Amino acid sequence: MIQTDILIIGAGPTGLFAVFEAGLLQLKCHIIDALPQPGGQLAELYPKKPIFDIPGYPSVLAGDLVTNLMEQIKQFQPGFTLGETAETIQKLEDGTFIVTTNEGTKHQAKAIAIAGGLGTFEPRKPILKDIEFYEKEDRGVDYFVKDPEKYRGKNIVIAGGGDSALDWSIFLSNVANSVTLVHRRNEFRGALDSVEKVQELKNAGKIKLVTPAEVVGFNGSERITAVDIEVNGARMKVECDYFIPLFGLTPKLGPIANWGLEIEKNAIKVNNALDYQTNIDGIYAIGDVNIYPGKLKLILCGFHEATLMCQSVYNRINPGKRYVLKYTTVSGVDGFDGTRKEAEKAVVKSID
Amino acid sequence: MIQTDILIIGAGPTGLFAVFEAGLLQLKCHIIDALPQPGGQLAELYPKKPIFDIPGYPSVLAGDLVTNLMEQIKQFQPGFTLGETAETIQKLEDGTFIVTTNEGTKHQAKAIAIAGGLGTFEPRKPILKDIEFYEKEDRGVDYFVKDPEKYRGKNIVIAGGGDSALDWSIFLSNVANSVTLVHRRNEFRGALDSVEKVQELKNAGKIKLVTPAEVVGFNGSERITAVDIEVNGARMKVECDYFIPLFGLTPKLGPIANWGLEIEKNAIKVNNALDYQTNIDGIYAIGDVNIYPGKLKLILCGFHEATLMCQSVYNRINPGKRYVLKYTTVSGVDGFDGTRKEAEKAVVKSID
Repeated sequence: MIQTDILIIGAGPTGLFAVFEAGLLQLKCHIIDALPQPGGQLAELYPKKPIFDIPGYPSVLAGDLVTNLMEQIKQFQPGFTLGETAETIQKLEDGTFIVTTNEGTKHQAKAIAIAGGLGTFEPRKPILKDIEFYEKEDRGVDYFVKDPEKYRGKNIVIAGGGDSALDWSIFLSNVANSVTLVHRRNEFRGALDSVEKVQELKNAGKIKLVTPAEVVGFNGSERITAVDIEVNGARMKVECDYFIPLFGLTPKLGPIANWGLEIEKNAIKVNNALDYQTNIDGIYAIGDVNIYPGKLKLILCGFHEATLMCQSVYNRINPGKRYVLKYTTVSGVDGFDGTRKEAEKAVVKSID
Repeated sequence: MIQTDILIIGAGPTGLFAVFEAGLLQLKCHIIDALPQPGGQLAELYPKKPIFDIPGYPSVLAGDLVTNLMEQIKQFQPGFTLGETAETIQKLEDGTFIVTTNEGTKHQAKAIAIAGGLGTFEPRKPILKDIEFYEKEDRGVDYFVKDPEKYRGKNIVIAGGGDSALDWSIFLSNVANSVTLVHRRNEFRGALDSVEKVQELKNAGKIKLVTPAEVVGFNGSERITAVDIEVNGARMKVECDYFIPLFGLTPKLGPIANWGLEIEKNAIKVNNALDYQTNIDGIYAIGDVNIYPGKLKLILCGFHEATLMCQSVYNRINPGKRYVLKYTTVSGVDGFDGTRKEAEKAVVKSID
């Protein structure tokens, strides 16, 4: 069982920054996220797009903000359970919580911070016969590319017409034995350079393009051996080891909707007067997932909420103990990995 | 009379960032600050020191954060009244406010945001006979270097043993005719390279050093012509045009303490449940200057408070009008100077 002080659900910017503020208070964090990498929407949906309203950044690419946050928190050595969804919660008599994921991973924590953003990003799935069978246990249907190495030397069929389909086709064209990209239109919608790169790789014979077309069926008894594709009314069979439909993600509040939390407009109600705690003592909600009067769904507000949450958890774990807050410029930052960051000290030196 | 939507009192990071959030809502801002440059403590007290708790910055020099914030807000063309202190406030019948500074500059605004940090930074003044006379009307005693050009070709005496005294001695040694640095000890306390640079300039004859010594009196009937210095029990007279004592700054809440605002522990009480408004309708307090249950005096909290304040002012100025908030990545940012920042648009393009 994974043990931690604060279990954070959601590895978006708010959840990541919470690790830093917790670390300043000597609290350890562990983060669960349904996506295969940290960063939430920023990493999954628009890593190459600029954000203009992060204070102190006239412009920052979403992916760079995630990289910077990961760098900022690494000294506090957060744990990660990625690619799994927090499913059930249990409150023990000692006030701690046990959270179990869809894959059975168990986490015990003194406090829970739900930083779930718009919710769990669930893939839009094509409606295809037997897809529920093939999406299980490595039988060939994957909705995320968790580890590109899995596809080395394999034959891959990707379906979709947006940035994810374009970007993974480009990336896997260097890894897989073959990449076939299937889209129901001839037109793709994405960053100009991605579209142009796919055109280039197609011309070079490194990506096979099948458009306007749709995957309509599977072959293979134990796992996929080929997919059936309908193209211009005709049918063709393409042999493959993996079929990766990338039709976008829909955020869903998911299993946490059943945890007994007060929900309003698909968000979790919190008491913002103090610490963004929910109706369940010890469970907090921070960032886009929460709602309170005056709430703005901005990353910078999530940072603030994360900070006040950590302070409240500190007081909860250390009742009566007074923590005197200092500016990091004055106090420095002591990492759990033994590193120390501090401002250069003034010297006292005579001039003669 | 200067007219604006939001009059911000305090040009520290919180006040500066408020300009950005106001701009997104098409609200104009003007900022008053007692210091001669924007940035508050960050610019005045520790521009070369790192801050570690700005989200997304593993480390950022305080001065760089100010530069970045100025860059982020410049498209919204804030006005500045610098080197003046907001002194009196008057609420007109139409709900607007008139704020007058110690130098008589008048500002009219639809809302007031006090972002005064720890307060107005007032210089620690040496106790010297007639100093009240010489500190007025360019008679030779200055507590801040507002415009270094003022000292070109002049003879300057600087007193103090910290970073300000060291840094301005170095800087003015290239501008003034002569710089004499007086300190009551032989030891200086500051950044190592500043101390070393002063040593170097002293050796090169570009700074005269008088230690351990104190300025004890003034000469000159209409303005300063020389100062008397006591050094090792003896007296000497140094001719000069300006005497600049740099003995540090003390934050004082200052005249806003008399504006009828509810004050607690030297801070302004706000209703944090909604928008950080004070007991006076239309006057907000954001950043380190405010207090509410759970308050943390952190820059990142000031950013959040500034943002919610702007949203509240928008609703106040545009009653009943609904503003639909969008992510800047999606909506872009339209500057008042005609510039537009936006994410590169996705293209729709066929691949053949």
